[in-house]
Amino acid sequence: MKLENTITSENINQKLLNVRYAVRGPIVDRAAQIERELVKGVPKPFERVVRANIGDCHALGQRPFTFIRQVLALASCPQLVSIADVPSDVKERVRTILGDCIQGSVGAYSPSMGLRAVRERVAAYLRARDGVPAAPEDVCVGAGASDVIKSVLTMFAGEAAGKPPAVMIPIPQYPLFSGTLSELGIAPAEYFLDEDKNWALSTQELERSWQQASQDYAVRALVVINPGNPTGQVLSRENIEEIIKFAYDRDLFIMADEVYQENIVSKPFFSFKKVMHEMGGPYSSMELASFVTCSKGWAAECGLRSGFAELVRLQPRVRAAFEAARGVMQCPTVLGQCVLHCVMKPPVPGEASYPQFARELAEVRRTLTERTTTAYRTFNTIPGYSCNPIDGSMFAFPRIEIPARAQAAAQERGMAPDEFYCLRLLEETGVCVVPGTGFGQVPGTFHFRTTILHPREEFQHMMDSISRFHHKFLQEYA
Amino acid sequence: MKLENTITSENINQKLLNVRYAVRGPIVDRAAQIERELVKGVPKPFERVVRANIGDCHALGQRPFTFIRQVLALASCPQLVSIADVPSDVKERVRTILGDCIQGSVGAYSPSMGLRAVRERVAAYLRARDGVPAAPEDVCVGAGASDVIKSVLTMFAGEAAGKPPAVMIPIPQYPLFSGTLSELGIAPAEYFLDEDKNWALSTQELERSWQQASQDYAVRALVVINPGNPTGQVLSRENIEEIIKFAYDRDLFIMADEVYQENIVSKPFFSFKKVMHEMGGPYSSMELASFVTCSKGWAAECGLRSGFAELVRLQPRVRAAFEAARGVMQCPTVLGQCVLHCVMKPPVPGEASYPQFARELAEVRRTLTERTTTAYRTFNTIPGYSCNPIDGSMFAFPRIEIPARAQAAAQERGMAPDEFYCLRLLEETGVCVVPGTGFGQVPGTFHFRTTILHPREEFQHMMDSISRFHHKFLQEYA
Repeated sequence: MKLENTITSENINQKLLNVRYAVRGPIVDRAAQIERELVKGVPKPFERVVRANIGDCHALGQRPFTFIRQVLALASCPQLVSIADVPSDVKERVRTILGDCIQGSVGAYSPSMGLRAVRERVAAYLRARDGVPAAPEDVCVGAGASDVIKSVLTMFAGEAAGKPPAVMIPIPQYPLFSGTLSELGIAPAEYFLDEDKNWALSTQELERSWQQASQDYAVRALVVINPGNPTGQVLSRENIEEIIKFAYDRDLFIMADEVYQENIVSKPFFSFKKVMHEMGGPYSSMELASFVTCSKGWAAECGLRSGFAELVRLQPRVRAAFEAARGVMQCPTVLGQCVLHCVMKPPVPGEASYPQFARELAEVRRTLTERTTTAYRTFNTIPGYSCNPIDGSMFAFPRIEIPARAQAAAQERGMAPDEFYCLRLLEETGVCVVPGTGFGQVPGTFHFRTTILHPREEFQHMMDSISRFHHKFLQEYA
Repeated sequence: MKLENTITSENINQKLLNVRYAVRGPIVDRAAQIERELVKGVPKPFERVVRANIGDCHALGQRPFTFIRQVLALASCPQLVSIADVPSDVKERVRTILGDCIQGSVGAYSPSMGLRAVRERVAAYLRARDGVPAAPEDVCVGAGASDVIKSVLTMFAGEAAGKPPAVMIPIPQYPLFSGTLSELGIAPAEYFLDEDKNWALSTQELERSWQQASQDYAVRALVVINPGNPTGQVLSRENIEEIIKFAYDRDLFIMADEVYQENIVSKPFFSFKKVMHEMGGPYSSMELASFVTCSKGWAAECGLRSGFAELVRLQPRVRAAFEAARGVMQCPTVLGQCVLHCVMKPPVPGEASYPQFARELAEVRRTLTERTTTAYRTFNTIPGYSCNPIDGSMFAFPRIEIPARAQAAAQERGMAPDEFYCLRLLEETGVCVVPGTGFGQVPGTFHFRTTILHPREEFQHMMDSISRFHHKFLQEYA
């Protein structure tokens, strides 16, 4: 008997069936549906959907940086260089980048690890950031951090020492990790961040998680997200040292997701690379992968897909295998690489574009500072909400009390309590946030992640909507 | 005892160690090294390296299409819309695309399957091409065809019916397939194209290959490359019908790599989608994935990373799993999607950009026609060379006789005879081509793949260099 389909849910790669990515999950699909209903005139208790599910600054109204966009325009269409009102440093930058493109065209493939000029710029940025040597050969440019994180995780798929592989990830975590581990067939070895201590990362908890996972798995790597996503904390230098020692003792490869390093409000940022180096031997000879993206930071050019991994001290044969697999996919987008070049070396005082760049940067920083403060303050005024201080990132991850009767109502509908809560929030206010379930949380606790970078009025509208909804929800289910 | 490295060639994902991609392989690395030696003044028997290893038209001197580049410039930097000398249809196009970007910014994430406006354009293109219904929902936009081909192949990883998976690929093939199958742990079930019949694809050979592979593997899908890469043939409608019937009988999912469909010199192109539809039931209800990219065709914008898969009649749960895995990687580059929009709907008569577009297109088509003819003719004049007519693509894949003594010399150096030949060619003439070994070939036959789209003078220089080298090589090893 012939099957209806050659690929079915029974014979498809079963790992794909487990991939979840709540940031673009069912609540977000429902938000899109509601938007279409609103357009059709279906009556709702609100006028518009407020999307707070994804860290996408441009979608929330941040204006692109003029310098970056002028560079992109001229790199795409060099004939426009004759335009008088494009600053001289834009023209100079375009000449530099196109000078490294074959035939001066962004339409030619670049080397698969990225243009030489871009990798050198990245290395210079890393040296300036850390005061530690950095080599262009260690830089792998990709289509955003997600792309290169997946490539690095791929190295850990498959058995090691006769055991299936596991990688340690924080809970809560950014679901790129859980989703990609599912696809690759790598078990997540979860360690909990301590919400009561502002999402601190304790080595006892790392040890507990490692011990438990090691019974059945070869634990290969430790993912640390700093600044935290969705949790927004910034690790102290001492904490990073402890983590590095732990990883050394357990022979774990450290993957440092540091994509929010330029979105910090007050605390200092220490990269794992810098701390490792300054700790000296044996730690300074450990391998490391760390990640930066143009989708975050001040540029926040999510749609242009550019980011990089710095891969330090890989064994040459390992590096060769990594590069071969990257090479099959040809190269990252060259216009994305232009953005990365700009982000790694923005205009400096004395350059023609600097005054405008400085104004635009100040506005982005001001907004972040204001929103983190307001979100923290407001969430802590809602009864049943508590929210840790937000050191960085672009999110709040408040904890919410959900009454027992509401939990029961959720269970009846086959939903997690926070999913039920967020869906009700969406249906009644149009505010679209992501339930804590999508990131992981201590069982019995409930959260959601919301972006906080909306324009001031929209932000206030969102906070008011959430507050009013919660009061009503408590009344209904108390 | 602590290991030096946490990831070693022993404990890395072993599948990665088998990934090969000859198009960017060791001979190409050597070419780059020689280029650096030339810059340093190291004496060589030639003045420059001629890179003929990769199908990259811009790198070979093709000028970008003005319309596409103007659209990119304005989409990046909409303030430039005030420029008087940008045609009105460029401005109109940019308005259309940005109208579908959140906040009108290419810096915001798009939906993970692509912008609605772009998917609709793709569907319209497919309908016009085939005269067959096509839906935007079936279109998955990605960072080039490679990206989406890998995603489709991922569905076949893992056991099915208790057997490890295999996917049928032609030999010679484009090594994206063999490389990606290695990474995914899917066995290649190889079927040979018949060089003596202009690289025809016979169903007997498909059957032989399937029978053999089925003993140990669950054979899941059939990859067909039409026009052929590296082989350049275009399949007849009758041949496509036979292939579809074979796939139907063996319950195989067809993956039609049709990326060179716009690079055909004379023969008509029939898409698998069209032929399947016109064959009627039961064939018209088969699933299908077909692939198009902006890196090939007339636009040939390799560096901008855009392409798509049309995925027809997938089971809804299968589609959902596919889309979830794509969603984790966020979205394809939005500027790449702008290019795809332009390629799917280039300027038409009456639009301001049309006259220039038409001139540029005519030049690209003229070059392709001229080079395919000249390459075919010239290769067949070299003693010991034979080359099938080139119907399409941008490559020649001549067969070369390698004397027994040269084969022995290769063996002494641990190289395949064609690798040895191509390396010698590079060292003595600076011409960098890819040995047939990288694509697969009937054992005992030898080939190389060369791009043929160089500027006329460079092309002549390359053909002369190859011809002279071969005479010398034959003298040396006869």
